[in-house]
Amino acid sequence: MTRRKSFGSDNHAGAHPEVLRAITEANVGDAVAYGADERTERVTAALREAFGADSAFLVMNGGGANVLGLGVLLRRHEAVICADSAHIDTDECGSAERLLGTKLLTVPARDGKLTPESIAERIPSHDDHFAQPGVVAVTQATEFGTCYTLAELRKVAEFCRLNDLRVYLDGARLANAAASLDCTLAELAECADVLSFGGTKNGAIGAEALIVMRPGLGADVPYLRKQQTQLMSKMRFVAAQFEALLRDDLWRRNAAHANAMARRLAAGLASVDGVEIVHPVQANAVFARLHPRHVAALRRQWFFHVWDERQSVVRWMTAFDTTEADVDAFLADIRSTAAR
Amino acid sequence: MTRRKSFGSDNHAGAHPEVLRAITEANVGDAVAYGADERTERVTAALREAFGADSAFLVMNGGGANVLGLGVLLRRHEAVICADSAHIDTDECGSAERLLGTKLLTVPARDGKLTPESIAERIPSHDDHFAQPGVVAVTQATEFGTCYTLAELRKVAEFCRLNDLRVYLDGARLANAAASLDCTLAELAECADVLSFGGTKNGAIGAEALIVMRPGLGADVPYLRKQQTQLMSKMRFVAAQFEALLRDDLWRRNAAHANAMARRLAAGLASVDGVEIVHPVQANAVFARLHPRHVAALRRQWFFHVWDERQSVVRWMTAFDTTEADVDAFLADIRSTAAR
Amino acid sequence: MTRRKSFGSDNHAGAHPEVLRAITEANVGDAVAYGADERTERVTAALREAFGADSAFLVMNGGGANVLGLGVLLRRHEAVICADSAHIDTDECGSAERLLGTKLLTVPARDGKLTPESIAERIPSHDDHFAQPGVVAVTQATEFGTCYTLAELRKVAEFCRLNDLRVYLDGARLANAAASLDCTLAELAECADVLSFGGTKNGAIGAEALIVMRPGLGADVPYLRKQQTQLMSKMRFVAAQFEALLRDDLWRRNAAHANAMARRLAAGLASVDGVEIVHPVQANAVFARLHPRHVAALRRQWFFHVWDERQSVVRWMTAFDTTEADVDAFLADIRSTAAR
Amino acid sequence: MTRRKSFGSDNHAGAHPEVLRAITEANVGDAVAYGADERTERVTAALREAFGADSAFLVMNGGGANVLGLGVLLRRHEAVICADSAHIDTDECGSAERLLGTKLLTVPARDGKLTPESIAERIPSHDDHFAQPGVVAVTQATEFGTCYTLAELRKVAEFCRLNDLRVYLDGARLANAAASLDCTLAELAECADVLSFGGTKNGAIGAEALIVMRPGLGADVPYLRKQQTQLMSKMRFVAAQFEALLRDDLWRRNAAHANAMARRLAAGLASVDGVEIVHPVQANAVFARLHPRHVAALRRQWFFHVWDERQSVVRWMTAFDTTEADVDAFLADIRSTAAR
Repeated sequence: MTRRKSFGSDNHAGAHPEVLRAITEANVGDAVAYGADERTERVTAALREAFGADSAFLVMNGGGANVLGLGVLLRRHEAVICADSAHIDTDECGSAERLLGTKLLTVPARDGKLTPESIAERIPSHDDHFAQPGVVAVTQATEFGTCYTLAELRKVAEFCRLNDLRVYLDGARLANAAASLDCTLAELAECADVLSFGGTKNGAIGAEALIVMRPGLGADVPYLRKQQTQLMSKMRFVAAQFEALLRDDLWRRNAAHANAMARRLAAGLASVDGVEIVHPVQANAVFARLHPRHVAALRRQWFFHVWDERQSVVRWMTAFDTTEADVDAFLADIRSTAAR
Repeated sequence: MTRRKSFGSDNHAGAHPEVLRAITEANVGDAVAYGADERTERVTAALREAFGADSAFLVMNGGGANVLGLGVLLRRHEAVICADSAHIDTDECGSAERLLGTKLLTVPARDGKLTPESIAERIPSHDDHFAQPGVVAVTQATEFGTCYTLAELRKVAEFCRLNDLRVYLDGARLANAAASLDCTLAELAECADVLSFGGTKNGAIGAEALIVMRPGLGADVPYLRKQQTQLMSKMRFVAAQFEALLRDDLWRRNAAHANAMARRLAAGLASVDGVEIVHPVQANAVFARLHPRHVAALRRQWFFHVWDERQSVVRWMTAFDTTEADVDAFLADIRSTAAR
Repeated sequence: MTRRKSFGSDNHAGAHPEVLRAITEANVGDAVAYGADERTERVTAALREAFGADSAFLVMNGGGANVLGLGVLLRRHEAVICADSAHIDTDECGSAERLLGTKLLTVPARDGKLTPESIAERIPSHDDHFAQPGVVAVTQATEFGTCYTLAELRKVAEFCRLNDLRVYLDGARLANAAASLDCTLAELAECADVLSFGGTKNGAIGAEALIVMRPGLGADVPYLRKQQTQLMSKMRFVAAQFEALLRDDLWRRNAAHANAMARRLAAGLASVDGVEIVHPVQANAVFARLHPRHVAALRRQWFFHVWDERQSVVRWMTAFDTTEADVDAFLADIRSTAAR
Repeated sequence: MTRRKSFGSDNHAGAHPEVLRAITEANVGDAVAYGADERTERVTAALREAFGADSAFLVMNGGGANVLGLGVLLRRHEAVICADSAHIDTDECGSAERLLGTKLLTVPARDGKLTPESIAERIPSHDDHFAQPGVVAVTQATEFGTCYTLAELRKVAEFCRLNDLRVYLDGARLANAAASLDCTLAELAECADVLSFGGTKNGAIGAEALIVMRPGLGADVPYLRKQQTQLMSKMRFVAAQFEALLRDDLWRRNAAHANAMARRLAAGLASVDGVEIVHPVQANAVFARLHPRHVAALRRQWFFHVWDERQSVVRWMTAFDTTEADVDAFLADIRSTAAR
C-alpha cells in the first residue's frame, strides 16, 4: 500500500464502495453455483441489452476474457493480427500462444491504433507456409490511452468483413472509451464480433464480461470458459459486481471521472517545461517524456511505471478514485522537479 | 437462491462473514497489483509456514489450481494417473487435456482412493507408443467424501517416489480432510510435491492456493499462472479471503462444522429404512442410495444432485453454514418420504 | 531384420517393388515442392475420384493422418468418442491430447466396434463441466482385425448425424476392409466426414492420405498439415507411392493377399488344440489365446506381439508379402508347440 | 516438373542416386518397425559419432525436427528468441506456436545472424507479464545463405550459457555450412544443446536428424517425437537415406557442390550491371536485387522466388544436382535480360 495516490495503474485502486455493498448484499442464503443463479441471469441479460449483444458471459479477469474471446473466434490454425502495443502481445506472458496455439502478427501502430492499411500489410498470400490471420484484435481504449473514433472502428470493421477477418475488441477500458467518446456501449460494440467489457479497472474487485455480438457464436463459450478455468463457482459474487457497476451507469461515472483526472493532469502539464505529452489524452492515461533524472526523482515519491526506458517515456494512470487533490499534488511535484 | 438449505454443493453456500469483513478491510487506499502487495506477501508466508512449503501462490478457483499444479509437475509429454472419479477427469470439461495437452489415465478407485497397486496397473512399459505417466493425482478429501489416512497417503507417496512419479494433491476440500483426520495441513502435504488448498468451498467467495512443497519447483509458477489467466490483478482481495480463513484457524472450524453436519445427517439416516449410505462419511458429503421415486419426491423440496442415475445414488453436501436445524428438517423429510 | 517372416506387424514388411519403382521413376529432374507438383495433383485427383471425396491430401504416417483428420473436425473445446481399443487412445502416446488438446472418451467395444448404443452411453448432458464429444472415431478394419459391415457403418453414421457428431474413420487398414467386404473405397467412405487411407501397411514405405468427404472442410487442411509438420517438401515421392498403389488396384491386391494369409492361418489353427481364436478373422490379423508357455516357446523362433498378457492373447499379423509357405511353417511350429 | 533447372529451392531437386540405391537395398525382408531395426541403430550411432552427440533421432522433415528440438529444450512456459528471418517464424505456418504453445520473440538480424547484443535486447525482466525466453534458435546456414563463423557461434553460445538460455540450431542446411566453413559437424554442433541435421535439401527424399548434445536431454525425445507424429513406422527407409549421405561423406560433397554453384553464379553476376548481391554468398543461396521488370522477364523462363517484393530482391538457390551448365545458362539469360 502506498501512502500517496498511485499513478501506476488503474488496478492499484481498490473497489468502489457500491461494488462491495453489492457483494455483501449477494451474500444471503444459498445460490446455485457456476452461473445458474438468478443474479447472474439478470446481469447477463442487462449486459446483452446494453450492448445489443447475442450473449454475455462473466469471467474473472481481463487476460481471461481476451484468450476466451479470441478462442471463440479463431479457427484452429489461425493467427491474430494486433497492434505491437497490444496487451495480448506484450503483457500477458504469451498466454494466447500457450492456451490457443495461435501466432500473433503484430503491426506497428501509431497511438496504439490499427488501420485498414496497416492490417492489410500483415495479410499474407494463401500459402500454407504462412500463418493465416483469422482475427483482428483492437483495443479500446488503447494501451496508450487513446480512443478509436466510431468512424475509425467502422473502417476497421468494414475492412475485416471484406477480408474474412473477425474482430475481437479488448475492452479492458471500454468504459473509459465510452465516456470519452460520449457514446453507448452498443455503438462501440458494433464493430466487433466478440468483445470484452472490463469491470476490474473501473471499480470492481475482479469482474469482466465477454460480450458476443454475432449470433450463434456464444454456444461454445461455456465449455471454453470452463476449460480455461475462468468459470467461478460462486458466480453470484462476480455478477454482484457488475450489478453495482451497471446500476445508474456507475461504470460510466467512474470512467468519466478517471478520464477527467487524466485530462486535468495533462492540462496542468501543458505549462511545465521539460515534460512532453506523447499521445493524445483521450482516456485515463497520460504518457509523457521527461528527463531520466526527473523520472528518478519523482519515483522516489510517487508510484508509476517507466514505459520506455530509452525514450524516457513514463505512463501515468488515473482511476475512479483519483481525486483532484491527488492530481494537483502530483502536478506540483512534477513542476518543481522539472524546474530543478 | 433456494429457500431451503441446499444440500447440492458446498459452493451453493455464500461467504463466511469474516471473509467479507476482510475484503472490506482490504479496500483501503492503493495496493500494488498482481500479488506484489504486502497482504499477499503476508498470506503466502503464512501458507508456507502452515504447510512447511517451499512456496505458495494464490489463484482464483479449484480448476485453475489443478491445471496449474499439474502443469508445474508434468514434463511436456507426460500423462497423469488419477482415480476414475477425479474431478480433473470427470468435472472440468477436459481442461487438463486442453490446457496441458496431457492424457489422463484413469484407475477404478474404490471410495475414490488410489493405492500403490491400482497405480501400478496403469504404468506401461517405456515404449514410445504408450503415454508415460509423470504425475499421480490424488484428491483429499475425495470426491466421495472419504479421506485417505496419513498412512495411506504415505504409501502412495512412497510408491510414487520409487517409480519416478510426482504427486499432485487436489485439495479443494483439504480443510475437511484435516478436520476429519485431526491432523495438520503440513502432515497432509507431506505426501505431495504440489497441492492445492481450497478456500472457496470453505467460506471464501473465490480463493484457492497452490502450495509447492518441493524446493525449486515454484520458480515457473508465476509465469504459468499468468499464462493460464489465473493471476488476479487486485490480488489483495484474494489474499484477504485467506487472511480471514487462516485467522484463528477459521478454515478448520468451518470444515469441522461441515463435517459434523454430514455425520449428523448420516447418523440420522442409520434409522431410515430404504436409505443406504454407500461411502464412509469422512468429510462433508453423504452418498446414499434410495428409491428413484423417493429421490424425485425429495428433489421437489430440496436441492441436491443425483450422482448416479442408474444406481439411484445421490450426493448430499453440507457446508460451513449448514445448521443442525437444516439437517434435522432434511432428515425428517427423508424419513417421511422413505416411509411412503 | 528377422530371418523368419515376422508376424509382428504389417509394417515389419518392406515396400512393394512397384512402390520403389514409382519412387525411382519420380526421381527425374526438378519438381515444385510441398505438393504443388503435377504428380501430387494427379494422385490426389485419383483419390478424390476413388472415394467420391471433396478433397484429398497426402501425409507421411498414420498417426499424422489421425491427428490431422480429428483436428479438421473438432471444434476447439470438443472431445472424441472412440473404442477403448482405438489406436489414437492406446498406441499414439497421447498424441491427440497433446496436439489437439482434446479428450478421448473411450467406449468398451466388442471386437473393436462402436455401436449407436455404446456411443450414446458416452454422450453427456449439455453441462459445461462435462467434456462434449464432437467427433466419433471409428477404425476400419479395427485393431482386432474385424470389419464393420457397411450396414453397421451406416447405423453409426446415421446416429452421429442425428446427434450432431461428425465421423472420423481411421483407415490405416482401410484397404484390408475393402478387400474383405469386397466393396469400393467410396462405399466405405460414405459414413465418414473425414477419413484416412493407409498406404504404409499395404506396401508403401511411408504414405497415407487424408480424405475429406464433406464439402468445404478441406480448406483448413493445408494449414493444419503444415503446422502439424506433416507436409513433406519433396512430395512427389509420397505421391509416387500412391501412384503405384492405385495403379491396377495394387492396393486391393496387396490387401486381399494379406487377408487371405490371415484366413489361411486361422483355418489351420482350427485343428490345433489349445489355440483359441478370439476375434472373427476379417482382415489381416489373427488374435489367439494359447498357453503362456506356448507363447514363450513360439516367440523364441518367431516375432509377434503379446496383446494381453493376462489373458495370454497374442496378435499375429500378415502382410502383402507374407507367403503361403510362411504361414504353413508358422502353423507347423504352432501345432508342434501346442502339442507339447 | 520444370524443364530448365529450378533455382527456386534446393528441395525442387530430386534424390541423389545413392540415396535411392540405399532405399532399395534396405528393402530386403522384414525389419522391426519404429526405429528398433539394426540399420537405424547403426545410422544413429554414426550420427552420434560424427557430432560428438549424446543421442540422435531420425525424423521426416525439417519443420518436424525444429518443433521437436525446441520442445525438448523449452520449459512449458518459455518463449524462443530467433532472428526475424528464422524459418520457424516466417515459413512454418505458426507451427511452433500451435504445437508447443511457445511465443517467438524475433530480433532484427543482419544477414540472418543473431549476436549476443541483439539477443540481449529481447530478454525482459523476470516479471510474470513478460514471456520469458528459454531458448535461442540460430540457423546455420541462415535463411540468407550466410554462415556464422565458429567464433560467432561460440560467442552466442557463451552468452546463452551465462544467461540460462539453451541453444537450438536449425541445421536444415548444416551440410552447406560445414562445407563452406570447411569444418566438422562436431565443431558446428559444439554451440548447441540440440540441433537438426538436414538430409532432405541435400539429396535425400525426406530425412532429417535431431542431434542431442547435452547429456540426459534425449530421454524425452522418443515420446515427444511420437506425439508429434514424426515417428515413421518403416524407419529403415529413413535410416537408409542417411546411410547413403554419411557414406564417404556424400553429404559434404553434395553440399560443397551446391555451394560452388552458388559461388559460380555470384561470380558471374559481379560483371552484370543492374544486379546487386545483397548478402554474402556463403552457402547455396544468392540473394540479388534487380529491377522488377527484369525479375518478371526472367521468371517467364526460370523458376525462382521473389523474396521481398518491395525491395525487388530475389532468391536463387542451387542444389546438389545443379550443373555448371545450368548456372551458365541462367547467367546468360540474366545478363541479356539486365541489358534490356
